[in-house]
Amino acid sequence: MSTPADFRLLCRREEFTSHTSGILPSYMQANLLILPGAIAKDFEDLCHRNPVPCPLLAKTERSFDKLDNVSLITHSDHGFDIRTDIPKYHIFQGGRLQEKSNDCRMYWRDNYVGFLIGCSYSFEGSLISAGLPPKNAVLGQNVSMYKTTKYMDASGIFARCPYVVSMRPYKEKDLDAVRSITSEYKLTHGGPIDWGFDGAIRLGISDLSKPEYGDAIDIEDDEIPVFWGCGVTPHLAIETVGHLIEEPVITHAPGCMLLLDTTYKQFSES
Amino acid sequence: MSTPADFRLLCRREEFTSHTSGILPSYMQANLLILPGAIAKDFEDLCHRNPVPCPLLAKTERSFDKLDNVSLITHSDHGFDIRTDIPKYHIFQGGRLQEKSNDCRMYWRDNYVGFLIGCSYSFEGSLISAGLPPKNAVLGQNVSMYKTTKYMDASGIFARCPYVVSMRPYKEKDLDAVRSITSEYKLTHGGPIDWGFDGAIRLGISDLSKPEYGDAIDIEDDEIPVFWGCGVTPHLAIETVGHLIEEPVITHAPGCMLLLDTTYKQFSES
Repeated sequence: MSTPADFRLLCRREEFTSHTSGILPSYMQANLLILPGAIAKDFEDLCHRNPVPCPLLAKTERSFDKLDNVSLITHSDHGFDIRTDIPKYHIFQGGRLQEKSNDCRMYWRDNYVGFLIGCSYSFEGSLISAGLPPKNAVLGQNVSMYKTTKYMDASGIFARCPYVVSMRPYKEKDLDAVRSITSEYKLTHGGPIDWGFDGAIRLGISDLSKPEYGDAIDIEDDEIPVFWGCGVTPHLAIETVGHLIEEPVITHAPGCMLLLDTTYKQFSES
Repeated sequence: MSTPADFRLLCRREEFTSHTSGILPSYMQANLLILPGAIAKDFEDLCHRNPVPCPLLAKTERSFDKLDNVSLITHSDHGFDIRTDIPKYHIFQGGRLQEKSNDCRMYWRDNYVGFLIGCSYSFEGSLISAGLPPKNAVLGQNVSMYKTTKYMDASGIFARCPYVVSMRPYKEKDLDAVRSITSEYKLTHGGPIDWGFDGAIRLGISDLSKPEYGDAIDIEDDEIPVFWGCGVTPHLAIETVGHLIEEPVITHAPGCMLLLDTTYKQFSES
């Protein structure tokens, strides 16, 4: 397996069905949401109104094998199929997880739209290269993620949907460098949205040791929490308004992303 | 005075120095912020990260007489000069209002960048046409505006800057129509970000009868408050971080906007 296209073929054949963390690390990975046509427009507007937690990279174009941004999937000798080319899918009904599957073709309908959302794997690599590795990466743990009392700006049925943030502890002296490095990654959440213990209060996070998602990461005496927009936000939005959605909604299983044929640098300059 | 270009010339000659509300109502108007080059990039990113309260329409291009979006100022028989072509400017120093002037040429420096931000005058017209006039328009008052406990996603020096919302009371049965009409105005704040008395709580507004800006508008028993992103937000951002800005910052005086050579419809389709 030497290219993202080869990797997607492995997924399609169900020969790879696990996490994509660390797979072909120079290439971008994307979060996936496949939604019924009736709410696709509302979701697209939600992304445009809330680009930090929901950075929309591309969407499918009236089909499961074509994206509206052709620079993301360039090698399709084997073709491309958003319904089979990631390791594992979750299928939701009424906002609740109904099934896990390596293939979601049986749930796809003609009016469905697949959305690719940027993921913060990209900027973690840059922080590591700069000698500022996130603690979760050093410890081999998942980043801490919190549901906040900040709400996204509403769009259609997506109302009252809370913002989810990821948190990485840093020394205060490193804050400027960390902000500067990650703010370059505009297409994958960008720089931190807030920081510090007062930042936690502004975001309505009452207990930093109890993240709603991921692992609890200790914050040492000389560290402060730093908060970024998080790709779990659109998934929580689907759960929050799920009771209003009649048809099934499909997402990637946590950590099981779509491998793209581009590096972050190539993509952001294209 | 029959065209926006004629009107801008009147402003330049200081023959018109008042509010632009109701002037050539079919044309778009824009909020103005003129910032020192050192923080212009931070501000532009702030707009991209927070497009609902800060809808960036255009910026000047290395000069005071040219915009990077040419569809906004098309008639420049008299030339265009962002330093003279609006009725009145406010000049801030250290985040505080220092001077009011009809001409800001003496403060302009070569590295300055002018930013045009969308304004909600556009969608108020559409609500009136649809038989859903905002109460403030009916009463001839200013809209109620509140500083919230929701903060913008940070960008450079613009950290911990609160979101300002405008509020218009509506009957609950009209909410869907009001949301639908205003959500078309994506370039000028779009649809409401939240609504209802529970929405006021989510936004941290403790007393709806005491707006921080504009006039207090009564909410009747059969009405709920509806909240939109508000163009005062970027102005408050300048005040909030003003102590970090060494050079003068220039804005339009409240209500004294730039008249553009385009209707909302033409612009959004261009």
